[in-house]
Amino acid sequence: MVLLEMSIVPLGQGESVSRYVAQCVEIVDRSGLPYELHAMGTIVEGELAQVLDLMRECIETVAKSSNRVSCTAKIDYRQGVSGGIQAKVASVRAKLGQKPPAN
Amino acid sequence: MVLLEMSIVPLGQGESVSRYVAQCVEIVDRSGLPYELHAMGTIVEGELAQVLDLMRECIETVAKSSNRVSCTAKIDYRQGVSGGIQAKVASVRAKLGQKPPAN
Amino acid sequence: MVLLEMSIVPLGQGESVSRYVAQCVEIVDRSGLPYELHAMGTIVEGELAQVLDLMRECIETVAKSSNRVSCTAKIDYRQGVSGGIQAKVASVRAKLGQKPPAN
Amino acid sequence: MVLLEMSIVPLGQGESVSRYVAQCVEIVDRSGLPYELHAMGTIVEGELAQVLDLMRECIETVAKSSNRVSCTAKIDYRQGVSGGIQAKVASVRAKLGQKPPAN
Repeated sequence: MVLLEMSIVPLGQGESVSRYVAQCVEIVDRSGLPYELHAMGTIVEGELAQVLDLMRECIETVAKSSNRVSCTAKIDYRQGVSGGIQAKVASVRAKLGQKPPAN
Repeated sequence: MVLLEMSIVPLGQGESVSRYVAQCVEIVDRSGLPYELHAMGTIVEGELAQVLDLMRECIETVAKSSNRVSCTAKIDYRQGVSGGIQAKVASVRAKLGQKPPAN
Repeated sequence: MVLLEMSIVPLGQGESVSRYVAQCVEIVDRSGLPYELHAMGTIVEGELAQVLDLMRECIETVAKSSNRVSCTAKIDYRQGVSGGIQAKVASVRAKLGQKPPAN
Repeated sequence: MVLLEMSIVPLGQGESVSRYVAQCVEIVDRSGLPYELHAMGTIVEGELAQVLDLMRECIETVAKSSNRVSCTAKIDYRQGVSGGIQAKVASVRAKLGQKPPAN
């Protein structure tokens, strides 16, 4: 299992960046890999090469409309595990005695 | 609005860290501030001093059972905005023509 | 020992951010704590409360001239160690069989 | 110019990670790309595909001796600029009225 969380923003294109985040989510969505959008980034699960290629495509896409692009990324590379986007949260909730959400 | 996303893990306490993440989520939950747990960190919204104090308490709590603690954090400090945990995602979904989830 | 690496940039104030980085380095320099500026951030060593207060002062200073400020931070909290800014690099160099630089 | 700052650590292999950092620095050194090791990560400059491939090789190398590997990365993608590892620091020093270091 490789989880990549990425946040990609242009510098010099104004205060609001949701338009650029939407561009990246579209690329991730088209990939067919499981992903989750949240307020501070987008988490995607796949093979290491897959998720890094996705990040590269997102950066290069945003760079078409912005000379400077800043990206932060976190990778959780764990062998023998999958479905990490839900499993990691469920594991913490279980330790807190919380049932997983209905969905 | 200040959104802080933090991820705090001990080094040297084994491969699984969900026990420590649960400790931190309990601290954040007790604070009463709006927050969201996801697979790569916990996002909390509040005043800058509040969220930094929370992060400090979490690090010091994990450090009670681990000599070395690693923390990564991202802060989105935006004046004149609130409810960012949902609002930022809704803003991106709207640009993707997606309706916000039912909850 | 606590090492904090921080990178603080305004969103919406143009592509070049070195002016804002300089503001932050001045604040860190005035603190008297050991620090090092590099191309992707500034590393400062101190007590956890000290370095978090510094980060807060830097964010609030940049926020005086920018409505939105983005900050990324990494913290290495290790008990019983100090002088980490040089010691960590020296430890890696030793494993590579490299002598530490002359300064 | 693309600057990638990466920090790659194994989870579950003890508190000291300098051995693994040294493995990554060797890989980066062999690449021939300009780089700089500091206390919180390693900065390397190159084309986006080059630096992402290097990061992938480093993660996969550390993963040979650790089932779980955590990586944080920051990318500064700026078109029309090069030599960023020194230039960015020099630009900030100039704004602080400081002369660049002798080397």
